[in-house]
Amino acid sequence: MIDLNADLGEGFGRWTLTDDDALLSVVTSANVACGFHAGDPSVMRRVCRLAAERGVRIGAQVSYRDLAGFGRRAMEVPPDELTAEVAYQIGALRVFAEAAGAEVAYVKPHGALYNRTVHDAEQAEAVVAGVRLAGGALPVLGLPGSRLLAAARDAGLTGVPEAFADRAYTARGTLVPRREAGSVVTDEDAVVRRALAIAVDGTVEAVDGTTVAVAARSLCVHGDTPNAARIAARVREALEASGAGIGAFA
Amino acid sequence: MIDLNADLGEGFGRWTLTDDDALLSVVTSANVACGFHAGDPSVMRRVCRLAAERGVRIGAQVSYRDLAGFGRRAMEVPPDELTAEVAYQIGALRVFAEAAGAEVAYVKPHGALYNRTVHDAEQAEAVVAGVRLAGGALPVLGLPGSRLLAAARDAGLTGVPEAFADRAYTARGTLVPRREAGSVVTDEDAVVRRALAIAVDGTVEAVDGTTVAVAARSLCVHGDTPNAARIAARVREALEASGAGIGAFA
Amino acid sequence: MIDLNADLGEGFGRWTLTDDDALLSVVTSANVACGFHAGDPSVMRRVCRLAAERGVRIGAQVSYRDLAGFGRRAMEVPPDELTAEVAYQIGALRVFAEAAGAEVAYVKPHGALYNRTVHDAEQAEAVVAGVRLAGGALPVLGLPGSRLLAAARDAGLTGVPEAFADRAYTARGTLVPRREAGSVVTDEDAVVRRALAIAVDGTVEAVDGTTVAVAARSLCVHGDTPNAARIAARVREALEASGAGIGAFA
Amino acid sequence: MIDLNADLGEGFGRWTLTDDDALLSVVTSANVACGFHAGDPSVMRRVCRLAAERGVRIGAQVSYRDLAGFGRRAMEVPPDELTAEVAYQIGALRVFAEAAGAEVAYVKPHGALYNRTVHDAEQAEAVVAGVRLAGGALPVLGLPGSRLLAAARDAGLTGVPEAFADRAYTARGTLVPRREAGSVVTDEDAVVRRALAIAVDGTVEAVDGTTVAVAARSLCVHGDTPNAARIAARVREALEASGAGIGAFA
Repeated sequence: MIDLNADLGEGFGRWTLTDDDALLSVVTSANVACGFHAGDPSVMRRVCRLAAERGVRIGAQVSYRDLAGFGRRAMEVPPDELTAEVAYQIGALRVFAEAAGAEVAYVKPHGALYNRTVHDAEQAEAVVAGVRLAGGALPVLGLPGSRLLAAARDAGLTGVPEAFADRAYTARGTLVPRREAGSVVTDEDAVVRRALAIAVDGTVEAVDGTTVAVAARSLCVHGDTPNAARIAARVREALEASGAGIGAFA
Repeated sequence: MIDLNADLGEGFGRWTLTDDDALLSVVTSANVACGFHAGDPSVMRRVCRLAAERGVRIGAQVSYRDLAGFGRRAMEVPPDELTAEVAYQIGALRVFAEAAGAEVAYVKPHGALYNRTVHDAEQAEAVVAGVRLAGGALPVLGLPGSRLLAAARDAGLTGVPEAFADRAYTARGTLVPRREAGSVVTDEDAVVRRALAIAVDGTVEAVDGTTVAVAARSLCVHGDTPNAARIAARVREALEASGAGIGAFA
Repeated sequence: MIDLNADLGEGFGRWTLTDDDALLSVVTSANVACGFHAGDPSVMRRVCRLAAERGVRIGAQVSYRDLAGFGRRAMEVPPDELTAEVAYQIGALRVFAEAAGAEVAYVKPHGALYNRTVHDAEQAEAVVAGVRLAGGALPVLGLPGSRLLAAARDAGLTGVPEAFADRAYTARGTLVPRREAGSVVTDEDAVVRRALAIAVDGTVEAVDGTTVAVAARSLCVHGDTPNAARIAARVREALEASGAGIGAFA
Repeated sequence: MIDLNADLGEGFGRWTLTDDDALLSVVTSANVACGFHAGDPSVMRRVCRLAAERGVRIGAQVSYRDLAGFGRRAMEVPPDELTAEVAYQIGALRVFAEAAGAEVAYVKPHGALYNRTVHDAEQAEAVVAGVRLAGGALPVLGLPGSRLLAAARDAGLTGVPEAFADRAYTARGTLVPRREAGSVVTDEDAVVRRALAIAVDGTVEAVDGTTVAVAARSLCVHGDTPNAARIAARVREALEASGAGIGAFA
């Protein structure tokens, strides 16, 4: 059984980005933007309503406060502030999840905060402290081997490792940084093949051609690329055809 | 028994405004800014912690999204958006109240939203819909006779009428608009006298010298003026000396 | 000779909206967003560069400070603040226009500010005061008969009346409000026909079927609708084929 | 001859911080916040007017876009975006300086951007590129030995070294980081003594008691501490009494 997650609700006011309706027909977990990098209250409300209707689990996609940079610029936020900001975002989303008869079921950092908490123990702990502050002992989604998952487990939370079908991996099993050429796999067939390998075999082909193990309980399909919804649908179909079960993580 | 409420947590990042520590020693209800006109997550967390320690009730001071204007500029926000924005703010504050072992116990609109919902039924209903969306059937604080209190009652919520010891009243019992001269009573002794009249007699002296009835279950002391904390303390002392009970509304 | 203007540069950070490249091949005047409702410094820089390369005139599309509402929500901004905000936006844009070897050649209010200054003399004068403060005696684009154009002329500036090929007109020659059904003409052929009538005959067919005079020196083609660039291109072709000259206003 | 500079106009909307009126009676150069970490158009306009009246030179205090963090949090802004943001801020301020009959005469980065460009050549060059983009070949204020001043000189701009009378220095002549104890000198007499040593002797006493050379053409007095204006006035008096000339750098 593997979970399929995607970033959703990444519009803001007049601007749209993710094809929320289409993606909600495919994924099992929706990482909903909470207003700090994208997502305004109306978008959040709408996405939560749709997700609840379709039985898609709702997660808080928490971010640095950076609309202008879409949360993709690392920021030296003091740990205490970061903790409060994470809790704020979870609380705000919770209102819409609960109003829709659902709940916020997990947390996933976005963009630069996600990348930062792979290696930075202090910020990872600050994020986890924010999750704890928000109550409910929510699971945290992150990279296998990341400081974030370690901090989550140390705090008594469930750390859920995820993999990316459309990102290149190094031979050590880490992601090739976005600034490097070839970091993103754009060929749709390749993305589908890689998704299958991750879900069924627990492996992915690294950039040097070797096969590396990837222990993932969730598979992230990106939502903000052209054709994102179609790729996600193809990944889902292939997984279903393969007999690999699809379902939200426990 | 009368409640004493004040606006708190109205700093933002490097900027401070309200003397939260001093005011929390005086009031029974703290209207905590939720980040839309003032208040950042760190300030919200701190104020909730202090309020909980001192047994001061926490309310969500919801506002238009307008940091540059401190929520004091009327905005034509479509009702649906306003509803979602109100719920967002309540949810965000709730995390900090609950982490402090307390709860968000009521809602009070701030600034231009407060003034607008005195007369504007559509926006009043949008605010009340946001309170409903956030769950918990929270009481709503507002002006006696306002559309806001009417909408709250229509929606099955408790509408709590409040009065202002430092604002001038017309002979009809409404507030003299801020843009008019003499709209704010700055003489401390006068503020204390007026507070007593409101709490004990249920009356206030209008600008034309007549005495008008003011049915208030809560008395608002402003937090963002110089000497705000001292005036609030004097009001509290005078009320206690008069035998008028002070306590949060039921 | 008629000018063709469109709103451009209305992305923000990760979000895009207007097809700036395509529209810059069509219009003679580019209303560039200045960061208050849309437009970040990088977008502004890029659009100014492209506009200068193609000889398209650059105008400052000034707005209320409202990214979340895309400048479409009326705000009660005090006149002095509005004046300073208008000047700020013009100054910011000027840097990019001048760096591209061009200049800010006119000013056009956006969205709610545009609508407000049709009727509201105080805000119209505040906008014009901002234009004056920014120096250079820039022309101001607006609706014929608007307070804005009157205020511009009173202040010694050129008021440039514009018309809309894709907006419905009342029999009195004013725009049908957006909230009313049929306010926007979506049929492409109709838009082209109306553009020709405005440019060649100085008339437009009103919603009641009557023909009303529209004295316009500039024709606005919207940039943020699907097919905006194609409609704009068709309007331009039709105008050129008709023998009506196209060119920036003097 | 030494220049006295201070950060001014660091309020935002309802919030105030720096005592602009008092400081403008003391300093020769005003680093005016441009809206990215503090400063709104109304504040900018007012400070420029006052500065022009008193013959105080106006500089653009440019910052990362970070109101919530007051520009004190390092951000990984891509160089091209940073360049555009710096130019935007300079352009916006220029409108108010010129409306007051003055000009923007120099640029000084604020907070985290200042600290970052001491060591980071890429961001230093991006800031300088923004200054160049804004035109006018403005001088750049910064730390002696910083990448910023080097980049300014490489680009043909004047780099103006400054010193801090209220900051502790290491034996190597660099500032003790703010996060370390004793990084800020709070004793007023000590600040005045240090100012004299810097201006007259070109030296400062380091934390280890040694005397280090500090080649400064400008002396920064902080504006956002309590008593900032009084300390600045005392520094100025002492400098005048010592015979050291005070005046804006050439």
